[in-house]
Amino acid sequence: MSRFFSQKYAGLVPYTPGEQPKERKYIKLNTNESPFPPSAAALKMASEALTTLQLYSDPECRQLVQAAADYYRVGKDEILFTNGSDEILDFAFMAFCDESTPAVFPDITYGFYSVFAELHHVPYEQLPLREDFTIRVEDYLDVQKTVFLANPNAQTGVALSRDEIERIVKSNPKHVVVVDEAYVDFGAESCVPLIHQYDNLLVTQTFSKSRSLAGARLGFGIGSAALIRDLNTIKYSTNPYNVNSLTMAAGIGALQDDGYRAKNCAAVMKTRAETAAALRELGFLLTDSSSNFLLARHPGISGKILYQKLRERGILVRHFDTPRLCEYNRITIGSEGQMKALLAAVREILEEDV
Amino acid sequence: MSRFFSQKYAGLVPYTPGEQPKERKYIKLNTNESPFPPSAAALKMASEALTTLQLYSDPECRQLVQAAADYYRVGKDEILFTNGSDEILDFAFMAFCDESTPAVFPDITYGFYSVFAELHHVPYEQLPLREDFTIRVEDYLDVQKTVFLANPNAQTGVALSRDEIERIVKSNPKHVVVVDEAYVDFGAESCVPLIHQYDNLLVTQTFSKSRSLAGARLGFGIGSAALIRDLNTIKYSTNPYNVNSLTMAAGIGALQDDGYRAKNCAAVMKTRAETAAALRELGFLLTDSSSNFLLARHPGISGKILYQKLRERGILVRHFDTPRLCEYNRITIGSEGQMKALLAAVREILEEDV
Repeated sequence: MSRFFSQKYAGLVPYTPGEQPKERKYIKLNTNESPFPPSAAALKMASEALTTLQLYSDPECRQLVQAAADYYRVGKDEILFTNGSDEILDFAFMAFCDESTPAVFPDITYGFYSVFAELHHVPYEQLPLREDFTIRVEDYLDVQKTVFLANPNAQTGVALSRDEIERIVKSNPKHVVVVDEAYVDFGAESCVPLIHQYDNLLVTQTFSKSRSLAGARLGFGIGSAALIRDLNTIKYSTNPYNVNSLTMAAGIGALQDDGYRAKNCAAVMKTRAETAAALRELGFLLTDSSSNFLLARHPGISGKILYQKLRERGILVRHFDTPRLCEYNRITIGSEGQMKALLAAVREILEEDV
Repeated sequence: MSRFFSQKYAGLVPYTPGEQPKERKYIKLNTNESPFPPSAAALKMASEALTTLQLYSDPECRQLVQAAADYYRVGKDEILFTNGSDEILDFAFMAFCDESTPAVFPDITYGFYSVFAELHHVPYEQLPLREDFTIRVEDYLDVQKTVFLANPNAQTGVALSRDEIERIVKSNPKHVVVVDEAYVDFGAESCVPLIHQYDNLLVTQTFSKSRSLAGARLGFGIGSAALIRDLNTIKYSTNPYNVNSLTMAAGIGALQDDGYRAKNCAAVMKTRAETAAALRELGFLLTDSSSNFLLARHPGISGKILYQKLRERGILVRHFDTPRLCEYNRITIGSEGQMKALLAAVREILEEDV
């Protein structure tokens, strides 16, 4: 910390992204990236946008907004694109929380929520998941706080049904409920269809997972026009040109080629089922994931040691050194080949150690 | 404003970007874009990065940081890349200003400074430029506030010398001085060489102007390792993956092809001199611009009317409806052909009206 750093942020502990080591080539199953390349249509559109890169990107993202509004069947004024979904979440913490409007979210979820809350000096409560890592819906009814729910939940992969989320949204008419659907395309129900019924619902999504565009940084929020207007006030006061032209073009292409997304999601779900079955056979305990990852622990080996031994073998998974998660590892569903390599390594490690 | 919007931001007046009309094709001289396409090397690198877009971008931007550190002769820990230079300015307002550390900047400068100050509840003072739109250096000596200076200055194009800025930096050892060098490549002296002498100096730049990459959104800050660490604390608490892979690659290509940048800057400066001379001949009064734009007024026609009449003729310039600027228009230096069209339109308008 320099002697100039504002006291306001002196105690801030930033978010730690998944490791991106460059010293050797790993099978990367640690940041929930897609094993499939982006759609050819996305790449073609981005490629065409290269020729006009000397011009500013459209701050209103008009063409992309039109394409997404058509796709999600919402109005153009009900959607806002951002530089990854982290940015729309940041904007939501700014717009809909403050010292007198606290936030609430599960104790196990996307680790950035608490960082955003600390950054913006928003008081927050972390409600414990049940022992089996499911969310207790009753905890969020009439909770008098701005609610942040990842659905499916980050780290656990466990999803609530749309009806369950609707109960939460309905019971909190005075507070915004943010449903972070980063992983929704891998088997959960989206709440986008509810936005016309509830003016306190904001749904966020990303092109990073199911649309294979993590490197392009494209996220968005869908909600009532009034909520989107508020978020635009924040956007135009922080970074009006937040989405660059190449990413915008790639996003349009990806939306046009939705069959490709659907096919890839189906493949991930198939591989997930096969990998989960194989891991169970090896004695692992798993949550019921509707995401592109599994959360797994083995009674015979500590989470940290398994993580380290996989790393030594060139396989990266995500290990969280927190009390409730330290016995687990979060394993991204990669290609069939990658999962075979993972299972072979796991077998080897278990034979050695257990 | 929705009923959920935080009171904290209730009075916020967002920044207004230059207009990007789509209804007809304009000669766009309103947002200081480059008339030249990006370097072929930048496009090639971006194009190659398309194939791995399913992977997250490197949050540390290691390759780009290495390339820029070599280019600017600074350490890798003395540079931070952001999603356009608006983002590094936003981070600087967060990190180095707060309710007890006010900001100070000229009354005529980049309009976003006051928006950032309002957003972050930073008290700020706007010191008037002299009548001739030059900055009074003495006003900024030992000023006991965080200083934001665009050099060359936004809107006016007028530059301070490196020595003048050094006086300001030296006289404010307890406060950060941010020198926003968005336009520095068009004839001003960069303060980057001073960062090793002054730990309170942060220089920001952008790839939007001289490197023809406005649509890619790439900006950066250079300063002492301690300042950069603070800014990284903010970055990793807001948007760790703030620079996408395509933009990162384009940035590396642009740095490698520096001869192209130099050639384009020379062309812009030549066209600027010719256009300024022609406008003076038509009776315009101009500031002494070291930027890729001119700020011009004509005693015989109001700034607003000239703006409107140019617009009707398919030429967009930037008009600011503020007391000290309303008689002026800011005119981006475009290609030779665009400037000829501008001059022809201006002649026509003056003959009609004056």
